[in-house]
Order: sequence, then structure tokens, then C-alpha cells
Amino acid sequence: MTQNIYDNAKFLAGYSQLPRSTLGLDGAPEWATLRSMLPSVADKRVLDLGCGFGWFCRWAADQGASSVLGIDVSENMLSRATADTSSTKIAYQRQDLEELPSSIGSFDLVYSSLTLHYIEDLPKLLKTVHQILHPGGAFVFSVEHPIFSAPANPGFTGDPANRTWPLSNYLRGGERTTYWFADGVIKYHRTVGAYVNNLISSDLRIDRLEEWGPTEKQLTQHPEWKDEVHRPPFLLIRSTKNSHP
Amino acid sequence: MTQNIYDNAKFLAGYSQLPRSTLGLDGAPEWATLRSMLPSVADKRVLDLGCGFGWFCRWAADQGASSVLGIDVSENMLSRATADTSSTKIAYQRQDLEELPSSIGSFDLVYSSLTLHYIEDLPKLLKTVHQILHPGGAFVFSVEHPIFSAPANPGFTGDPANRTWPLSNYLRGGERTTYWFADGVIKYHRTVGAYVNNLISSDLRIDRLEEWGPTEKQLTQHPEWKDEVHRPPFLLIRSTKNSHP
Repeated sequence: MTQNIYDNAKFLAGYSQLPRSTLGLDGAPEWATLRSMLPSVADKRVLDLGCGFGWFCRWAADQGASSVLGIDVSENMLSRATADTSSTKIAYQRQDLEELPSSIGSFDLVYSSLTLHYIEDLPKLLKTVHQILHPGGAFVFSVEHPIFSAPANPGFTGDPANRTWPLSNYLRGGERTTYWFADGVIKYHRTVGAYVNNLISSDLRIDRLEEWGPTEKQLTQHPEWKDEVHRPPFLLIRSTKNSHP
Repeated sequence: MTQNIYDNAKFLAGYSQLPRSTLGLDGAPEWATLRSMLPSVADKRVLDLGCGFGWFCRWAADQGASSVLGIDVSENMLSRATADTSSTKIAYQRQDLEELPSSIGSFDLVYSSLTLHYIEDLPKLLKTVHQILHPGGAFVFSVEHPIFSAPANPGFTGDPANRTWPLSNYLRGGERTTYWFADGVIKYHRTVGAYVNNLISSDLRIDRLEEWGPTEKQLTQHPEWKDEVHRPPFLLIRSTKNSHP
């Protein structure tokens, strides 16, 4: 089973203070890029893998999705998501993504934000994503960029004018245990190639791959993000289930 | 025009001593992986962009290619390639890849080894590659990995037991001037996402993306390669020209 760190009180208290938790999608610097990678959700059946507080589910419903299912392993997050949601088009369900059943439904768009790096068995999950996606349907997701997740002790070094990101063990996939709001947060590092090749092996065509960094406009508004240009914090991929003749 | 560093005497003297120059394809550690990404070349028309000493051209002819064209900007390399080649199926042609004309021919496989990072205008070259490829034909290439090409001063730091690769400016695409056998070697850094998205925009489907590092067997034979696991030196991509109905 996936580690359920989001139900750790100390972790959740810290995570809840992030702009993406208090402001929603617009508090996430990569949202504008991720949004640009989405197909229109109007009249679509949408699934959000790792829905957290439900911000994306509510956005999708507002955009005219016919139905939205948000699933997450965290009881506390789903509890707040439910409290914050009024649309009857949206349902939430508690589910370990490592054991996602194909009976969960049929969808035109599967979305996932910063969740898949907590998943140990990516090929298994992608097999299910392929099964539940309608042909021509899209799977759009973000993860921690592998350059970010590779080092055992991630962090910049060097003086402010001369920052570098000490990269190590990039090609060694597997578990990483780090401190993020709490000790012992378990993630699974895999390379960009592993994401790409696992999607292709699952009959999901790569449409676009973005290594997110701040735009010039964002840097003007948030000069504190300037080091992000040295290594991308997020990897964003849009893929499509092939329609075979 | 592409910088023709391979006709710089000091550079060429150094480059000529590399195992990949003296031993050919088997002297290149990434060759086994790159070879595994190639379609069968039997009875195929093959083009090698940046053919150097012609090792791949001769290999392709030996594998039964119907014709092989090797192009390169370096007069000295083509001169040795010609001297080392007897097969009448192989032709060499001097050409700046920045100005590759679509009249160069029609091909079933376009191959390129460690050349595209010298090209400033990748979209322009990919447009031509798409034009000269037969539908269903493959474009398989290797480049310096963007993690390798990003820093202005690439190199490992730390003691031997604790190496890191100080990454910087990964998201800043553009010219990099480095020392490699000679001063002033000009390369063009672009991200993994830029390679992938430029291929897709050129109607070339991504089939496989490998970030090469040594296998366990290679590490046994070459323990001096152990640091390569911290950052991939090479990026290898196989793509296919879509066949539209």
C-alpha cells in the first residue's frame, strides 16, 4: 500500500500552508502550463488520481465536465474536499492508487497532479489507466521532476549568485526517503525515460513533455523562484490512448 | 554554418584517440543500446547525419542496407571515412547539417550519433528529416544528454565515494562554449522536453527514449565508469514518421 503521509498530522499541517493548498490551482506555479496541456473537459468524464483537497475536481466541474471522480488515499484530504464541494457532478472515493481497480469507471480524461512519484508500481497503474480510458482519451499528469527526486539529500548549494543542484544517482531508480514537512516521506524515483517508455509500453502516445520552470513574467512576480531555472522541479506529460483501427 | 571543430587539428587529434574512433561502434559504450533501438536495416535506404569516420555507414552496409549515405561537415573525417570504405553501397557527402536540403534523397532510416547538439536550428533540421523520411521510417539518434550539456563548466565534484554532478542552467537553452580537446567547442543545449516536443511537432512519433548509463556488466569491465550512474551522459531517442491514412 502507498505510504499515506498526507494523513500524518505534522505533514498535513505543513502541506496545508502551501499556496497550492490555500489558493488552489492558481497557487501552483505549474498550473498554467498543465492547464494548457489539457483537452477541453466540457461534457467529459474526468478522473483525478490523487485529488487531495478537490481543487481540480471543482475546476473541471466548473468547466462543464459531465462527471468528475476524485480519488485519494488520504482520509483527511477527502474530508476537506467533500466539505468544500457542492457540485453534484463530483464524487470522491478513498482508494490506494497501487490497487486502482479497472471497475472504477470509464473516462475521457485521467488527470494526476504530483502523485505518481508516490507510486511504486507505475506499469501496473498505467495498465489500469489504459483500461479505463476511452480510445482517444487523454492522460495528463505532473510529477516531481526526476532531477529533483534523484538525490538522497535534494537541495541547492553555492552562493546565491552561483547556485548549482548537486545531482546524484539519477540513473538509480527506486525508493527515496526524504524530509518534507515530516521525516520519512517515501517517494519513488524513476528517470524521464522510465516515465516515457512506460507510457509507450502501455499504448499511451506521448503528445507533449514539459519540464516546468518559471516564465519571465513569473520571475518578475516571484524573484525568489530564480534558482528554479537551474533544474526543473516538475515534469508534465500529456499522453493519449491510441485509437487502433 | 555549424562550427567545424572536427577540422581543428588539435581537436581531431584528441577525438581520434577515443575508443569510439579507434575501435568503432563497439568502442562506444552506448552503442549496444542504440543498436537495440534501430529497426532492421536490411534492404533499407539509410542516411547518417554526422557520419564522422563512417563506422555506422559500414556497419549498415554489412547488415544489408540497400544504400547508405553518410554526410558530415568535416573534410578530414570524410577523407578518412572514404579511405576506410570499400563497399559500393556507401556514399559520403560533405554538407553542413544546418543547411541540409530535402533533395538529399529519400530514406527508410535516418540515423545520427552525437551530432544534433552541434545544431542550432533543430526544428529546421527536423522538418527536413520528416520530408526525406518515407512514412513509417525511423529517425534514431543520440545526443549529449541535456543534464550533461547544461552547465557552463561540466564536471563531477566531491570525493570519489560521494560524487555529485553540479547542475545549473538546465532550463536555459542555447549556446554553450566548452573545452573538449580544444578551446571554444560550441554546442547548443536544449532540454529533454525540447527534443521530445520538437520531434512531435515535426510529426515524428516518440517510440523510445533512453538515458544511457552503464549496465552492471559494463561496470564490471569498466569500473572507471561508476560515476556515470549519477547523471546520464547520453540521450537516445527512436522516433517514427507517422503514416497518415
